[in-house]
Amino acid sequence: MAFQPTEHQHVRFNPLRGDWILVSPHRMKRPWAGQVEKPVGEDIPAHDPKNPLCPGVVRPNGEVNPNYESTFVFTNDFPAMLEEVPAPQESNDPLFQSAPARGTCRVMCFHPKSNLTLPLMTCQEIKTVIDEWIKQMLDLGKKYTWVQIFENKGAVMGCSNPHPHCQIWASSFMPNEPKLKDTNQKDYFAKYGRPMLMDYVNKELEKKERLVVTNDDWVVVVPYWAVWPYETMVLPRRHVSRMTDLTETEKTSLADIIKRLTTKYDNLFECSFPYSMGWHGAPTGPCLQDDVQHWVFHGCYYPPLLRSATVKKFMVGYEMLAQAQRDLTAEQAAEKLRVLPEVHYKNA
Amino acid sequence: MAFQPTEHQHVRFNPLRGDWILVSPHRMKRPWAGQVEKPVGEDIPAHDPKNPLCPGVVRPNGEVNPNYESTFVFTNDFPAMLEEVPAPQESNDPLFQSAPARGTCRVMCFHPKSNLTLPLMTCQEIKTVIDEWIKQMLDLGKKYTWVQIFENKGAVMGCSNPHPHCQIWASSFMPNEPKLKDTNQKDYFAKYGRPMLMDYVNKELEKKERLVVTNDDWVVVVPYWAVWPYETMVLPRRHVSRMTDLTETEKTSLADIIKRLTTKYDNLFECSFPYSMGWHGAPTGPCLQDDVQHWVFHGCYYPPLLRSATVKKFMVGYEMLAQAQRDLTAEQAAEKLRVLPEVHYKNA
Ligand SMILES: O=P(O)(O)O[C@H]1O[C@H](CO)[C@@H](O)[C@H](O)[C@H]1O
Ligand SMILES: O=P(O)(O)O[C@H]1O[C@H](CO)[C@@H](O)[C@H](O)[C@H]1O
Repeated sequence: MAFQPTEHQHVRFNPLRGDWILVSPHRMKRPWAGQVEKPVGEDIPAHDPKNPLCPGVVRPNGEVNPNYESTFVFTNDFPAMLEEVPAPQESNDPLFQSAPARGTCRVMCFHPKSNLTLPLMTCQEIKTVIDEWIKQMLDLGKKYTWVQIFENKGAVMGCSNPHPHCQIWASSFMPNEPKLKDTNQKDYFAKYGRPMLMDYVNKELEKKERLVVTNDDWVVVVPYWAVWPYETMVLPRRHVSRMTDLTETEKTSLADIIKRLTTKYDNLFECSFPYSMGWHGAPTGPCLQDDVQHWVFHGCYYPPLLRSATVKKFMVGYEMLAQAQRDLTAEQAAEKLRVLPEVHYKNA
Repeated sequence: MAFQPTEHQHVRFNPLRGDWILVSPHRMKRPWAGQVEKPVGEDIPAHDPKNPLCPGVVRPNGEVNPNYESTFVFTNDFPAMLEEVPAPQESNDPLFQSAPARGTCRVMCFHPKSNLTLPLMTCQEIKTVIDEWIKQMLDLGKKYTWVQIFENKGAVMGCSNPHPHCQIWASSFMPNEPKLKDTNQKDYFAKYGRPMLMDYVNKELEKKERLVVTNDDWVVVVPYWAVWPYETMVLPRRHVSRMTDLTETEKTSLADIIKRLTTKYDNLFECSFPYSMGWHGAPTGPCLQDDVQHWVFHGCYYPPLLRSATVKKFMVGYEMLAQAQRDLTAEQAAEKLRVLPEVHYKNA
């Protein structure tokens, strides 16, 4: 019998993390009798005077939001990191090591209206979001080693407010995930003399089987080593190390790619598609002068849904204790997304 | 100001995985307006003729379950791994690496009754479960490098059947998580000449601040580097590398520890406490003859709940893209669990 990636389980290597993923495509055939999620609420008002993210609203700490008309950024009222805290004592026991963590957490609203999401915003409005991301990266990147921009979308992703927004957590330390990517990209560059992800994007453009959507500056793929069912990666065609290095044209075309990708996501199960997403680029702060040729700026989308608007993939027992496992191949997921219309189902 | 671990954010090192965790204890003060889980159903019948895990029931594939009276093991009807599949072609491209994955997946029922869980079973019944685990480890361990026993408990952990059961996935490859633990335990042993987790358990017994429950052979702690709010680790007092090395006395006292720990878990929020748990020990199959002195057999419990029976911790945006973050210290979680009664709330 010949090997068929869509029929036969195998493992795939993730060169960015240096680990493996188990692909068991035959498993999509099993029935699902487990937990189903609540369908996403569709009756969100454009303005809710009780919603602390809306313009003109008084937040729990007494501050009043301005009547903002595009984006609006403020420091999280319950931040996971504060700028000034005492440092833990040093210990020489290898089993009980702690270290200081300084940082700040900001919330960024994308738009004054609560009933919009990125795919329903105009490219111009998304471009304004990108401009604000870059402003924040420049500001926080002066001081902090790592500035993580991320969006938790949908209640199933722990998002507690439907208003379109993301978060920005900046830290004095380099977190695990970018540290892994830094090491592996550095090793690849040392070995091959080219940035890993530029080699990767060029090969994906040749192979074509994992492409989701592309334009003159950007390429979206379901990565060969994807973990989440419809995980995607947004890659630049030009070698860019940080979001702050983008040209005006690249910012405009990034808005186009974001709108088209998130529209396809919403169209997949005809719902406001939940995900966590974020941007990764070369570290900042004390690393701003470092040689970061090995780094390629990219975006990561991690959506939880597997079968429908209400059935997600559970990353539990085996995944937590042993290794991530997926139920359809990256190529199958890419094909499903690729053929979807680029007009949002609500406007169709 | 002096550093207070319960007040001031910091990072802690996990020597088993070689990564870090962000601890932000002041964050427990924030209000929660996000998704709440369905309370766990309490009206499960002891026997349901439609439940494929019950004795005497016809499974979807036409097989009839025996009228089992203690444990019952069968091959998963929808396994993520099959024993015989063609291998993928080798590639010399570092960015597109796949490898063969052979294995098998079994389901193991703990008890004939659907309305029982481990804390509600007798120590003798739990001992029978442990004996069966060891039988399975011996059987599958002859052939397979890694035998992962794990229990997904509760719908929130993707468990689709309330009948008390676990799964056993055996593979020809060493999965990521045990591979990391193997490397880090090996490095520690090379450096200090003692198994990492024996040093660790002895230090925890001295410090006492993270102990949850102990007996003559076993110690349960919330590890210093815990990620999940009420994560625990079950450690032996004697240096044991594999579950199959346990003495009769140690098996009996492991049943006692499991009953006491899971009873405390249920008592925490007065619900059938969801978790994913599993056992880690030295690899098997082709590794059975290797020197595995660096390995200490241990159990890992990863429960998702944070605040109540219906509010879990979401490991999303920042956690997926940057680093795991927790909202109370390991010491606070251990204290909460330690002071809970050891009589189950349903029997109190
Ligand atoms: O086999 P089950 O219990 O149906 O499936 C559950 O556990 C598996 C192993 O952790 C996961 O891969 C699945 O996502 C989860 O739903
Ligand atoms: O700050 P939020 O949106 O309330 O919180 C959400 O995102 C955070 C960052 O990913 C997580 O730590 C929380 O568990 C999650 O509920």
